[in-house]
Amino acid sequence: MSTKKTDFDVIVIGGGPGGVASAVRVSQLGGKVCLVEKADLGGICMNRGCIPYSHMMMAVSLKKKISTLGRDMGIKTREVKIELSTLIKRQSRIISSLRASLKKLLMSKKVEVLKGRAKIIVPGRIQVNGNTLSCKKIIIATGSRWDRPESLKDIAGKILNSDHILNLKEIKGSFLISGSSPFAMEIAQYLKSNGGEVYLITEQKRLLEKESKAICSRISKLLKEQGIKIITGQKISSCKWDKGRYRVSLNGIGDTVVVDHMVFMKRVPNLEGVMIDGLLLDESNTYIRVNERMETSIEGIYAVGDVCSPEEMHFSHLASAGGIVAAENSMGIDSHINLKLIPRVIYTYPQLAFIGLTKQEAKEKGFQVITGSAPLSMNPYGMILAQDYGHIEVVADKRYGEIMGIHMIGDGVCELAGQGVLAIQMEATLRELFSTAFPHPSLSESIIEAMRQCSGEAIFLP
Amino acid sequence: MSTKKTDFDVIVIGGGPGGVASAVRVSQLGGKVCLVEKADLGGICMNRGCIPYSHMMMAVSLKKKISTLGRDMGIKTREVKIELSTLIKRQSRIISSLRASLKKLLMSKKVEVLKGRAKIIVPGRIQVNGNTLSCKKIIIATGSRWDRPESLKDIAGKILNSDHILNLKEIKGSFLISGSSPFAMEIAQYLKSNGGEVYLITEQKRLLEKESKAICSRISKLLKEQGIKIITGQKISSCKWDKGRYRVSLNGIGDTVVVDHMVFMKRVPNLEGVMIDGLLLDESNTYIRVNERMETSIEGIYAVGDVCSPEEMHFSHLASAGGIVAAENSMGIDSHINLKLIPRVIYTYPQLAFIGLTKQEAKEKGFQVITGSAPLSMNPYGMILAQDYGHIEVVADKRYGEIMGIHMIGDGVCELAGQGVLAIQMEATLRELFSTAFPHPSLSESIIEAMRQCSGEAIFLP
Repeated sequence: MSTKKTDFDVIVIGGGPGGVASAVRVSQLGGKVCLVEKADLGGICMNRGCIPYSHMMMAVSLKKKISTLGRDMGIKTREVKIELSTLIKRQSRIISSLRASLKKLLMSKKVEVLKGRAKIIVPGRIQVNGNTLSCKKIIIATGSRWDRPESLKDIAGKILNSDHILNLKEIKGSFLISGSSPFAMEIAQYLKSNGGEVYLITEQKRLLEKESKAICSRISKLLKEQGIKIITGQKISSCKWDKGRYRVSLNGIGDTVVVDHMVFMKRVPNLEGVMIDGLLLDESNTYIRVNERMETSIEGIYAVGDVCSPEEMHFSHLASAGGIVAAENSMGIDSHINLKLIPRVIYTYPQLAFIGLTKQEAKEKGFQVITGSAPLSMNPYGMILAQDYGHIEVVADKRYGEIMGIHMIGDGVCELAGQGVLAIQMEATLRELFSTAFPHPSLSESIIEAMRQCSGEAIFLP
Repeated sequence: MSTKKTDFDVIVIGGGPGGVASAVRVSQLGGKVCLVEKADLGGICMNRGCIPYSHMMMAVSLKKKISTLGRDMGIKTREVKIELSTLIKRQSRIISSLRASLKKLLMSKKVEVLKGRAKIIVPGRIQVNGNTLSCKKIIIATGSRWDRPESLKDIAGKILNSDHILNLKEIKGSFLISGSSPFAMEIAQYLKSNGGEVYLITEQKRLLEKESKAICSRISKLLKEQGIKIITGQKISSCKWDKGRYRVSLNGIGDTVVVDHMVFMKRVPNLEGVMIDGLLLDESNTYIRVNERMETSIEGIYAVGDVCSPEEMHFSHLASAGGIVAAENSMGIDSHINLKLIPRVIYTYPQLAFIGLTKQEAKEKGFQVITGSAPLSMNPYGMILAQDYGHIEVVADKRYGEIMGIHMIGDGVCELAGQGVLAIQMEATLRELFSTAFPHPSLSESIIEAMRQCSGEAIFLP
């Protein structure tokens, strides 16, 4: 590291999960660090993303459980409704409390926080609020911003996104949800569950077309059963505001959909203030190119989180994991991120979790793919939890039995995902894990059964 | 293996989880196998234990969530009650369905099932229903039975245990629960949650005195807050039936407790029909002694499950894991069980999960113990789930950072337990797991934070 006197060892731009993790880790390693944030600490994740949405989806899940599982179990209730004003108040309380904790955390970790817009001038020099700060390294964690599509330009000012849905105190009428955000499914279920009529439109051949077909076909079926209209392989060609409603024309379908509200969800990297000469983007010319050390094309500049990831990988836990890696490298510790260990999770009810490679991806990479699956409808705890649709799929390589991917749908699989992450991280083979005893009864048991199923050695499955 | 012609390669005595796993695995490995069961297939686990109790506790948990979390989230309900007759009907449906599946499973796996009482005559010869069967190996999986204490002999016929609680359609009056079963806490919470007044008495200095103090003090506090009266370090010296109630005298306390119902829960190995010359018991002269290959002191005879375990390890997943090990060894594959990988789980609300060594045990084994902990009240998903009491504790060895134990209290930790099992099974060091990204938000994230806390490197904890 250079011995030239600078204001800071590291300046981190952006106070979301990636930026916070970066700054804390730099400080922990003895670096003098400054975190610049132009708006609220915590980023979209804490303020308008993961936290409020998983909170809302928890309410949706609880409501569903009360009216199905609860009734079956003898818990009598009237028609179950969520009073949105109360839900939103609790959500605000949680966010305020998290923000306050975060402020305290950064103080206790000796991270200097600066409110303002940062602009990189050259490597090692950043302008904030008119002042120039010097540093040895820069970590870009500016996240993403909403994108507006060309086809909706006529109604641009009226388009809703998840920020608006978050604070709707009343859900009425019909909604058309489109865009590429995987979180569109959460929004669809939230709106439907609270009285909205919902169309979910995707350009993809099926929902989450890159993810496990076995899992995605189940959530797709379930959303349809809940009354959500799913239209796949379709793009909006135009949208007109007509007599208080939207007339939406779709490519490919002669038909037109008429709805009360338009929701468009697509996020793109937020490059404002950070694009300087020599900073390269990825092949699609969208996000900042980084290597597994989170280094950009410019020495001394790192990037983490949404700003250096495709939209399907806009996950807060990827941002914070990347943040730690960037921080360590910036402080001279060699550190690497392993993208195949980052779980992709969706907080629908039931939840979805995808870890590692799909069957298709593993085949394309040349593995001799074997798969095993265990339906949660045959798992005793799954029966107790009424997980008729629940399913676990394991993808492995036949040669050495190495586990390549684990994919799940079921109640609370955001927690089961951890087993998948550890199994792949430890480069475990199927046989090594055959002897694993998970608690009985638990949904987790099906992970081992699905692994045993890969080689025809399941014990409790026919 | 001997080439002498026998009726079966292996005869398994007992059709609970240990016996079923044994028999299926023997058959899978090409052995001719017979499973002898005198009563219902599935053992106490499926018929009167894990399954109905985790079902009942799921209802307790859901009821609690509706009236606390649900209300806070704006889900309005009247006073929430569980209609026990409906709950019991659902429980019976699930058990019937599991029994039917089990029958089909054994058929599809080519396991011959024999209904009757088995008696071992000599190694390799078993009597069932008056007939003598020959086999190469025997696996004893006879489980456990209820024990009646000397101090309660005056009221022996009236004592309730979990079998009776299971079918109570009305819960009224006061209950005194004693005995050494760790499941006593589940019963206590179930009775209290459904209108009973509950005393929980233990001879131990605290509830679950062998388990993590940090975790157990939390559940203890919580049960007390729920109105359960916990009396520790006390033994019942006598109990008299007096004017329709029980007068219970306790050692050490001058006081007498007067209650409407007595629940005593202690299970001992069921040795009927299997105790033959040369079969040794453990040091306490209670359960069958086995080694890590599940071999008893007699060649060709194996034992698995409750019949070869102390009461605090009467877990169905230990029985089935042992069953697979016994089956493999009986068929000539060298296989071992690792007891430190067996999670101890209790389905109270919130649940408890203990994996590996406690701080105390690790110290006694000579490790340089370091610990880290993460309160779920500071975990964002924990805040969403209102996990004020939730907590994760990690015990590690300072020298190499090897993880020795993970202990938890929180909603659904029976699923998080799997991460603990895998971390210890892979002999992971703290540092290897520091880079692990679990989904955000999830309770699982606190496992990694607790690990990082062990070496003062937590990111999101002050």
